[in-house]
Amino acid sequence: MSAIPQEFVRTTARLSEEVTEPFPNSRKVYVTGSRPDLRVPMREVTLTPTQTSQGEEENPPVMLYDTSGPYTDPHARIDLMAGLADLRSAWIEERGDTEFLTGPTSAFGHARQSDPTLAHLRFEHLRTPRRAKAGRNVTQMHYARQGIVTPEMEYVAIRESLRLDELRADPRYAKVLRQHPGHAFGASLPDLITPEFVREEIARGRAILPANINHPEVEPMIIGRNFRVKINTNIGNSALSSSIEEEVEKMVWSARWGGDTLMDLSTGKNIHETREWILRNAPMPIGTVPIYQALEKVDGRPEELTWELMRDTLIEQAEQGVDYFTIHAGVLLRYVPLTADRLTGIVSRGGSILAKWCLAHHRENFLYTHFGEICEIMKAYDVTFSLGDGLRPGSIADANDRAQFAELETLGELTKFAWEQDVQVMIEGPGHVPLQKIQENMTKELADCDEAPFYTLGPLITDIAPAYDHITSGIGAANIGWYGTAMLCYVTPKEHLGLPNKEDVRDGIVTYKIAAHAADLAKGLPGAQIRDNALSKARFEFRWEDQFNLSLDPDRAREYHDQTMPHAAHKVAHFCSMCGPHFCSMKITQDVRDYAQAHRIENIEVAVEEGMKEKAREFLEEGAAIYKAV
Amino acid sequence: MSAIPQEFVRTTARLSEEVTEPFPNSRKVYVTGSRPDLRVPMREVTLTPTQTSQGEEENPPVMLYDTSGPYTDPHARIDLMAGLADLRSAWIEERGDTEFLTGPTSAFGHARQSDPTLAHLRFEHLRTPRRAKAGRNVTQMHYARQGIVTPEMEYVAIRESLRLDELRADPRYAKVLRQHPGHAFGASLPDLITPEFVREEIARGRAILPANINHPEVEPMIIGRNFRVKINTNIGNSALSSSIEEEVEKMVWSARWGGDTLMDLSTGKNIHETREWILRNAPMPIGTVPIYQALEKVDGRPEELTWELMRDTLIEQAEQGVDYFTIHAGVLLRYVPLTADRLTGIVSRGGSILAKWCLAHHRENFLYTHFGEICEIMKAYDVTFSLGDGLRPGSIADANDRAQFAELETLGELTKFAWEQDVQVMIEGPGHVPLQKIQENMTKELADCDEAPFYTLGPLITDIAPAYDHITSGIGAANIGWYGTAMLCYVTPKEHLGLPNKEDVRDGIVTYKIAAHAADLAKGLPGAQIRDNALSKARFEFRWEDQFNLSLDPDRAREYHDQTMPHAAHKVAHFCSMCGPHFCSMKITQDVRDYAQAHRIENIEVAVEEGMKEKAREFLEEGAAIYKAV
Repeated sequence: MSAIPQEFVRTTARLSEEVTEPFPNSRKVYVTGSRPDLRVPMREVTLTPTQTSQGEEENPPVMLYDTSGPYTDPHARIDLMAGLADLRSAWIEERGDTEFLTGPTSAFGHARQSDPTLAHLRFEHLRTPRRAKAGRNVTQMHYARQGIVTPEMEYVAIRESLRLDELRADPRYAKVLRQHPGHAFGASLPDLITPEFVREEIARGRAILPANINHPEVEPMIIGRNFRVKINTNIGNSALSSSIEEEVEKMVWSARWGGDTLMDLSTGKNIHETREWILRNAPMPIGTVPIYQALEKVDGRPEELTWELMRDTLIEQAEQGVDYFTIHAGVLLRYVPLTADRLTGIVSRGGSILAKWCLAHHRENFLYTHFGEICEIMKAYDVTFSLGDGLRPGSIADANDRAQFAELETLGELTKFAWEQDVQVMIEGPGHVPLQKIQENMTKELADCDEAPFYTLGPLITDIAPAYDHITSGIGAANIGWYGTAMLCYVTPKEHLGLPNKEDVRDGIVTYKIAAHAADLAKGLPGAQIRDNALSKARFEFRWEDQFNLSLDPDRAREYHDQTMPHAAHKVAHFCSMCGPHFCSMKITQDVRDYAQAHRIENIEVAVEEGMKEKAREFLEEGAAIYKAV
Repeated sequence: MSAIPQEFVRTTARLSEEVTEPFPNSRKVYVTGSRPDLRVPMREVTLTPTQTSQGEEENPPVMLYDTSGPYTDPHARIDLMAGLADLRSAWIEERGDTEFLTGPTSAFGHARQSDPTLAHLRFEHLRTPRRAKAGRNVTQMHYARQGIVTPEMEYVAIRESLRLDELRADPRYAKVLRQHPGHAFGASLPDLITPEFVREEIARGRAILPANINHPEVEPMIIGRNFRVKINTNIGNSALSSSIEEEVEKMVWSARWGGDTLMDLSTGKNIHETREWILRNAPMPIGTVPIYQALEKVDGRPEELTWELMRDTLIEQAEQGVDYFTIHAGVLLRYVPLTADRLTGIVSRGGSILAKWCLAHHRENFLYTHFGEICEIMKAYDVTFSLGDGLRPGSIADANDRAQFAELETLGELTKFAWEQDVQVMIEGPGHVPLQKIQENMTKELADCDEAPFYTLGPLITDIAPAYDHITSGIGAANIGWYGTAMLCYVTPKEHLGLPNKEDVRDGIVTYKIAAHAADLAKGLPGAQIRDNALSKARFEFRWEDQFNLSLDPDRAREYHDQTMPHAAHKVAHFCSMCGPHFCSMKITQDVRDYAQAHRIENIEVAVEEGMKEKAREFLEEGAAIYKAV
């Protein structure tokens, strides 16, 4: 725990090596789209060949979805003081529907920018904020509904596809392309993701592309049930902890391990400046819960919140470039009493703030009554709604209760209202839910919110394991992702207990990458199994380094192997520490294959597949065996 | 990594403090059954009262299922050299169907016992082995089918129930007894587990009570889909590592964290002596894979295995007290070719040994052809079959293939054969299976094996996360447990990479306790939600210590809390580090409740429950609020 601003020195802000080091045997490749300034990064993992008795057999490189941004590109110049390169300004400019402002139009943003005492904290190269021209709507949904495929849409189509069409045409990939049929619970996964498909899904509201016009640094990505399941990570200082530099480092760390989006949940000091630093250096969409900052502005007294203050905060953040806002507009006055009999009441911070406001004023939630005006702001900057679940259950006992579902129904109404304005929407979901009650959450969300992307925290499937809630929630996340949730909000081992450190963030992210990938496999996302197949093939062939390099966390996989078998020679050993050199099932299986090859009996599996078991037995009894050559 | 026997000094063998220290605020209680020597241990966690404005409100103690054996009982005298107290000998003796042998009847057991060079390794107080009298069958299934409720059956009924009937009659428990209805996929969970129900389930073959007559130290437990889901842990030295003392310590460590059964998978030196030490000190059933030891006896050459050698090994181990044997009798010659087209061939050690044997001799698996003789051994000592899945998939690609399911069908036939001899059976399952293909495994097992308990390794739901395979498999385990698997075989973070150390074992066990408990909740096991409710209530009321003490890993929960808030005062703080003292949703909710109390409006939730939303609104608009007093 470190003190807040005094430790932060702008001129020396830099990242540690561990967050920028490229992954082993990986290279950043860029796939160019229909225009030269549309270059989509991917991670290509190079593999070693398989050694067979006939010589070497190539294992073609594996393409991985890459969230790490320029930080893992050794050719990129990283300068936190300057921020990331500007990917999208030309695209935004070309559309001709935005204009530059002379400076922040929010009172708060203006005041912070003019305050000389903040100079040492302030990001130096502030961008001039952009806003839609009067009467224009600059959301990706608006373009999509007009039939326009934006460069952002083309970008995500290339990004999601990972060159699958090329791989299918390449015979070297035949072995790793095999995949089980999925069970997708009504999702409509296309055989190949095209720009036009992306446009259709955004127009339909079934996917969002969160990309504020004031966040041109963002590498576009998409969230929807017919795309790869995504994960969100959270950072943020609080009154007790953390500096700006730490927060930026955490953001990059999160990108490295696979965070697709990131929420800045800061509630401490200098929230505005921290956010600027994060945004200018963030390759992923950034979300916030603006009411947290609004509350800071009234010294933590919910009853003093006003719509005017909230409005100013929304504009302040929109002009900085925040890509999505959590808005708890569904916490209605009449729903609050529904939580009275709960075991754990209201556990959402936003939910409890608004409940307290509603009670103090005996009035309806101002986010609900001003929802139309919020939509106007969202349209002017393309900020996406993340409609908050302020009444989510905080314990297994409170799962799927009337309070929770009443709010969800209201979120459904708000979704339709926002869609009428062409504003992008996703829906936040619980929380704590036992396994048998998870699917009801998904089914109801799809029905009530007309398939708007669902974005869930976990859910945790039991309450009894604090210190392991990345796991309790990762189990729920894999299931709800399978059922159709589009983005999973990660949970770290410190959930309920304390602030996560970097190792906790890594544990949380990797756990959620597992959940998201398991969901992709289960739904049958085309190409999802390539990585599993390539890794298992490497494992079976004792290509240890390839196994590590293909894994979600190559560093830890290697480290664990080193603990028992530290020598470099062991990385090419045809055995492992579990069984030792003389007793290894994989080695035995290999022996069996060699035996088969020596006896040159082929096609036995064909005979068997035809049901000719007796024929197979004959082969065997002739002294033959089994395995065709690898 | 330590060398093997030279470090082991029998006279000083002892456990470290960390494995025997009692859990905080917990006390070992014994519930006495129908006879004074039937005393069932449970862990009782004492809680602090809730502070309300009216004073203190009691939180009654929570009863937990306790696998830790006498090791966590400060009144028990632990002496590894003497072994655990003998719980069951009187019960076994009373049945009058067994007799003492003069010594080991296996050639190998006899040789080891007579070898003076092993004196320094040997457990001192060897028990005289017992065997069924000629023509008698001493299995729990045999008794059950004769209508006999054994003391072992009564023991497990008390153990499973955790005094639920008393709790239901006690008004202090009303709040924590509430529970969601489960979705049990055809399981028949009784409202209360009685000794007669236990007998019926064992007689039916739907549950097993693994308790070799030569393992009288065991605390009886039951494995079946209509009981709490259990977890198995593995230990075992290998050619590369581990001493006897380390293995015993690991066994006790495993019991501490919640391992219900334990498999000794040793493949290194002195397997016989290591096993004796483990058995004499093990409160849980011990399983083995006897073919591992048989293979050691032929210096790792599968083709030299013989039925005679295997038979001698089974008797050797049965006379030591092993409670269940993994027997890969379903790896039939004709199934081996079915694995030829697999991505990862045969990955089960047992499966690959037998496949190699079958091929070398061009003969059917000797475990299959001698299955009847194996049953005779099982009957004479009450060893339970764990029918091994030698052809389980080793990768996502190979899941649910014909090889795997062909073997499962044969295991079903063998189950029925064993049941005809009143021999207890469980069925081992995979392995690596993507989420959407897990349920098919369970459904097929229930159908083919007529509801014999399923015992699965994971399954891992993706291959891409070595170093996190406790999680990839924990997700699969929670799901398959929910669908009906009776026991989950744990996986540690070192799976596929190296040998687990104590922290890995702890991580693996806690992950699997989460999975098993989540499955219990999802199935609707009566009483399962008490612990969740009590912990969440503690959390909501900022009773930090109670929250820690009720968690699966109190030490780590406390440690994580300490990392951000190290002072003792923080353990009674009405805030936590995530939000800081001035901004806490739980604090705000409490404020809201206090507000409601100050305004003395009660019963608003009753009005709401009756659907009288307008009435509720009136209350609110009169200046009232929401929360009834805690």
